[in-house]
Amino acid sequence: MALLDLFFGKPLASTDERTEQIGPSSGVAIFGLDGLSSAAYGPEAALTLLLPLGLLGVHYIVGITSAIILLLLIVFISYRQTIEAYPNGGGSYTVASENLGAGAGLLAASALIIDYVLTAAVGISAAVGALISAFPRLQPHTLGLCLAILAVLTLVNLRGVRETGAAILAPTYLFIACLLLMILLGIVHTVVAGGHPHPYISPAHLPAASTAVSFWLLLRVFSSGCTAMTGVEAVSNGSTAFREPRARNANFTLTIIIATLVTLLAGIAWLCRTYGIGATDPNSPQYQSVLSELLGAVSGRGVFYYVSMTSILLVLALSANTAFAGFPRVLRVIAVDGYLPNVFMLRGRRLLYSWGVYVLVGLTGLLLLIFRGVTDRLIPLYAIGAFLAFTLSQSGMVMHWRRHPSPGSKVKMAANGIGAVATGITTVVVLVTKFTAGAWITALLIPLLIGVMLMVHRHYQRASREIALNTPLNLQNLQQPRVIVPIDRWSRVSEKALRFAMVMSNEVQAVHVQLADEDDRKTTSICDEWNAMVAAPLRAAGKEVPELVTLQSPYRFVLLPMVNHVLEQEQRFPDRHLAVLVPELVVKHWYEFLLHNQRGNLLKLLLLVRGNQRIVVINIPWYL
Amino acid sequence: MALLDLFFGKPLASTDERTEQIGPSSGVAIFGLDGLSSAAYGPEAALTLLLPLGLLGVHYIVGITSAIILLLLIVFISYRQTIEAYPNGGGSYTVASENLGAGAGLLAASALIIDYVLTAAVGISAAVGALISAFPRLQPHTLGLCLAILAVLTLVNLRGVRETGAAILAPTYLFIACLLLMILLGIVHTVVAGGHPHPYISPAHLPAASTAVSFWLLLRVFSSGCTAMTGVEAVSNGSTAFREPRARNANFTLTIIIATLVTLLAGIAWLCRTYGIGATDPNSPQYQSVLSELLGAVSGRGVFYYVSMTSILLVLALSANTAFAGFPRVLRVIAVDGYLPNVFMLRGRRLLYSWGVYVLVGLTGLLLLIFRGVTDRLIPLYAIGAFLAFTLSQSGMVMHWRRHPSPGSKVKMAANGIGAVATGITTVVVLVTKFTAGAWITALLIPLLIGVMLMVHRHYQRASREIALNTPLNLQNLQQPRVIVPIDRWSRVSEKALRFAMVMSNEVQAVHVQLADEDDRKTTSICDEWNAMVAAPLRAAGKEVPELVTLQSPYRFVLLPMVNHVLEQEQRFPDRHLAVLVPELVVKHWYEFLLHNQRGNLLKLLLLVRGNQRIVVINIPWYL
Repeated sequence: MALLDLFFGKPLASTDERTEQIGPSSGVAIFGLDGLSSAAYGPEAALTLLLPLGLLGVHYIVGITSAIILLLLIVFISYRQTIEAYPNGGGSYTVASENLGAGAGLLAASALIIDYVLTAAVGISAAVGALISAFPRLQPHTLGLCLAILAVLTLVNLRGVRETGAAILAPTYLFIACLLLMILLGIVHTVVAGGHPHPYISPAHLPAASTAVSFWLLLRVFSSGCTAMTGVEAVSNGSTAFREPRARNANFTLTIIIATLVTLLAGIAWLCRTYGIGATDPNSPQYQSVLSELLGAVSGRGVFYYVSMTSILLVLALSANTAFAGFPRVLRVIAVDGYLPNVFMLRGRRLLYSWGVYVLVGLTGLLLLIFRGVTDRLIPLYAIGAFLAFTLSQSGMVMHWRRHPSPGSKVKMAANGIGAVATGITTVVVLVTKFTAGAWITALLIPLLIGVMLMVHRHYQRASREIALNTPLNLQNLQQPRVIVPIDRWSRVSEKALRFAMVMSNEVQAVHVQLADEDDRKTTSICDEWNAMVAAPLRAAGKEVPELVTLQSPYRFVLLPMVNHVLEQEQRFPDRHLAVLVPELVVKHWYEFLLHNQRGNLLKLLLLVRGNQRIVVINIPWYL
Repeated sequence: MALLDLFFGKPLASTDERTEQIGPSSGVAIFGLDGLSSAAYGPEAALTLLLPLGLLGVHYIVGITSAIILLLLIVFISYRQTIEAYPNGGGSYTVASENLGAGAGLLAASALIIDYVLTAAVGISAAVGALISAFPRLQPHTLGLCLAILAVLTLVNLRGVRETGAAILAPTYLFIACLLLMILLGIVHTVVAGGHPHPYISPAHLPAASTAVSFWLLLRVFSSGCTAMTGVEAVSNGSTAFREPRARNANFTLTIIIATLVTLLAGIAWLCRTYGIGATDPNSPQYQSVLSELLGAVSGRGVFYYVSMTSILLVLALSANTAFAGFPRVLRVIAVDGYLPNVFMLRGRRLLYSWGVYVLVGLTGLLLLIFRGVTDRLIPLYAIGAFLAFTLSQSGMVMHWRRHPSPGSKVKMAANGIGAVATGITTVVVLVTKFTAGAWITALLIPLLIGVMLMVHRHYQRASREIALNTPLNLQNLQQPRVIVPIDRWSRVSEKALRFAMVMSNEVQAVHVQLADEDDRKTTSICDEWNAMVAAPLRAAGKEVPELVTLQSPYRFVLLPMVNHVLEQEQRFPDRHLAVLVPELVVKHWYEFLLHNQRGNLLKLLLLVRGNQRIVVINIPWYL
């Protein structure tokens, strides 16, 4: 236990929990982290797809980013209204299942599950991308670094979330400050240089255009860029954490986050065009993230560069951390409704839904392994989940306003309706443009997850129907069980079992399996022993003598004849319980376990698998 | 079961067993296989060490082989006497423990265990060596081929040994015929060419001498060459298999085997010198076995070459098979004496000691993996075990003759004495010369194995002392147990448990663990339920109402409070048995298992580990 305590902290009592009461300044960091960090990979994802256009591609980034910002503002307005309507937390799953029914809820649930895993995977891989931009020599170790960060996050999170709250503020604000300063520096340089600034460090040379602009290409670029919008739903999910007036504080926080994100996206796009900075091939050893190139261009590789890159790395890694907070909670909410195994409802020693963490770590690790920790390969899977959740949430809000008419609800319904349509169209665009690049995986996983959840639900429903009992204790037919005692030879263990059996019931049967390997002498000896050691004293005391049954086993199986005998007895006495006493040697050390045959355990297992309601197994332990 | 039958054959009844009754012609194949196949790697092992001497080294092989043949003849005479004295099977373990005591027996046992594993590993790796000599392109797959052969042997052997007997005769006699023909051809060519035959295919060029001859080098060569003697003890181990007159048939068989082996060894050595054929580096892509080179030199790569190489491959693979027959039997004999776990005494469905096979396969696979399937690297570990067993067996025979004086026993004692001294010296020589090359592993494993066997023995002795009972059934103090029923909420499962408890005893206690997470309403409801569903009907029937105990659990642990409560009750009633009824849901499909918490199983485990003689666990299964 001491070792567990050291790694994971002492167990926390349930009463240690408190509702966190935060204001906008903490809120921007805690709930903005995920959304703001998207600025570090969203524009890059778009620019990577513009690579084939060469220098020309860089000019399109401003237009694409404008479209994304417009969509972002629509979503912003929609979520303001969700927060007002659901001040106690309006995650997509809640909003969708409450307003659109269980089916929509499950769709949102599976979208969220996939999205959280990708948030963790993309956050980690983008953080490692920042690291290898600063230190290119680390590139061959991309996957190893990703898994190392995952391991650290796991350990930190298994200690519990409370410690992580405080550590988030500083890096997030540092990140915002650095990127804003970078944009400011870029503007100043550009103005001073009359529109054509000279970069401190020249960005990587962009290849010549190898393809012409097409609408399809721009759609794909837009789809990739939309990953910049992931995470903006965090405030509405977690609005319970804000202090009163809850909705106002939450909405103020959301406004600041969106404003900052818009500034960052716009600034990055404008700087890219001005400096002519595109993406670099993530598979080449010369890979450098776009933000690294931008920082190098506006300030060179000085202190500012390294401080900024560190903040980017930290914020991306921490954004993966938001999945550790959110994923287990989502699984829990779904499990409470009976759509996922109960185990996700158990809170571990540190008040955490531990099994959710295990599943998240497993799936994230798997994703990182499959895609070798390269962000660019993960991007096509991302965004669909997020936009599907957006769409369902906004559609749910439309229904909400229809059901709860109030002054102004028409306008709100229209706003959410526009949001639903815009995000719905985006979902389709992302799915279609990214389908072959990996979105098909997400498209396949969503129905699969829904299927699993439906099966789990059906099982639980059936099980609880079968077990439920509304009548009082039945006192009829309270009869002693018939007891069967397997016996090998006369020993302290068999004496203990026999004594226990005789107390339980007057109908006791001792059963001996005679292996064909043994010579007949041994069989004689068990009968002799039985007469001398059991039958004689019982007769002398005037008590009933249990029956001794000997089973033949030509194939040397010990357990099968025993199990068959029990089942046969069970059929002969259809109205009785049958208790089988299984003696079991308990050893002090684990290695001694190997020295004794595990027939007792196997017999228990076989009786459980082949038995039925009326067969009860009783362990008679003997401690060596 | 059908699938099992297909792969492993139908189960065999014990009565299906018969004593095999074989004569010398089958005997030579069955018991000679292991010894004769040594001719395929023994000379090669010696020649590999002579490589640094270049062409000069090849000349030494005749002298070295003569020494080995002399030793072989001494061992031959010794074993003839063992067979006469132990016509019912005189393995080293039997002879040593009967005549020299348990310590010597254990030493022989561990030597045999190691030797058998190496027989399997070397047989397989040498077979693959033959294969890659014929088809050099297969060399990169050495390890894979080794493991494939191991897999085939495992499957064949798990079906049982009876089928394998017949398959041995043909390859063994083919092998003998091919090698004798090769030697004959070599002699004819040499005579015709006046002492300097022209090879059909020139053997690999031997490198220039890089070191001078030294006594130490020749000792090492001799040690390696001694692996040619492994396996000659097979006849004396298995003499029970011969038909009467048993000793005569066995001895005649042994004579033929030794004569053949001597002829092969002498012929190979002479041919190597005449044709100037040395070994090739087993790690180089140009590797070819010595026999492959010899065959190429005397006959070219025609039909004869490929037939011979096939017979070599088969015989080597089959010699590994002798380990599959012998190893489990040795483990069984040791287990019968209580020095190894009982499990090695169990015969599986096909009359085979299955666990011995599993252990052999595991260890052989491990050896092949560690040494990458290269025979040359395995050789230094080999031979020590065999020679240690020889020495102990001969020494045991010396004691045997001393204890059973008879006319001529003095002469026999002297013969066995010479054998003991000769093999004893060889053991020391092998150990010293090969120590750094790998013999240290064997030297380390032998005392380790002895230690393990002694510990196992001590444990069994203690356990059987503790369990043994010579007094009749004690009828004092037959008291009903106190019964504890864990209860979560009122359901069919708890009703069943409660009914069972009430039949067993008048002292029943229901225990509910209240988690801190749950609101108080639920606790109230369990009390209300209890009163309505249990207490009320019992009071109405005028029966005693079981006590309901509620345990608080601030840390949300369910099991720990339960276990502590049981232990506390156990201490409060030191003279009573305590029965804990653990309800358990049994599901139909394995995947449904994941949907239910395994608290029942964990509770059983915890009660077993932390409990004692007076705590009995009763499974109340509920089939969904």
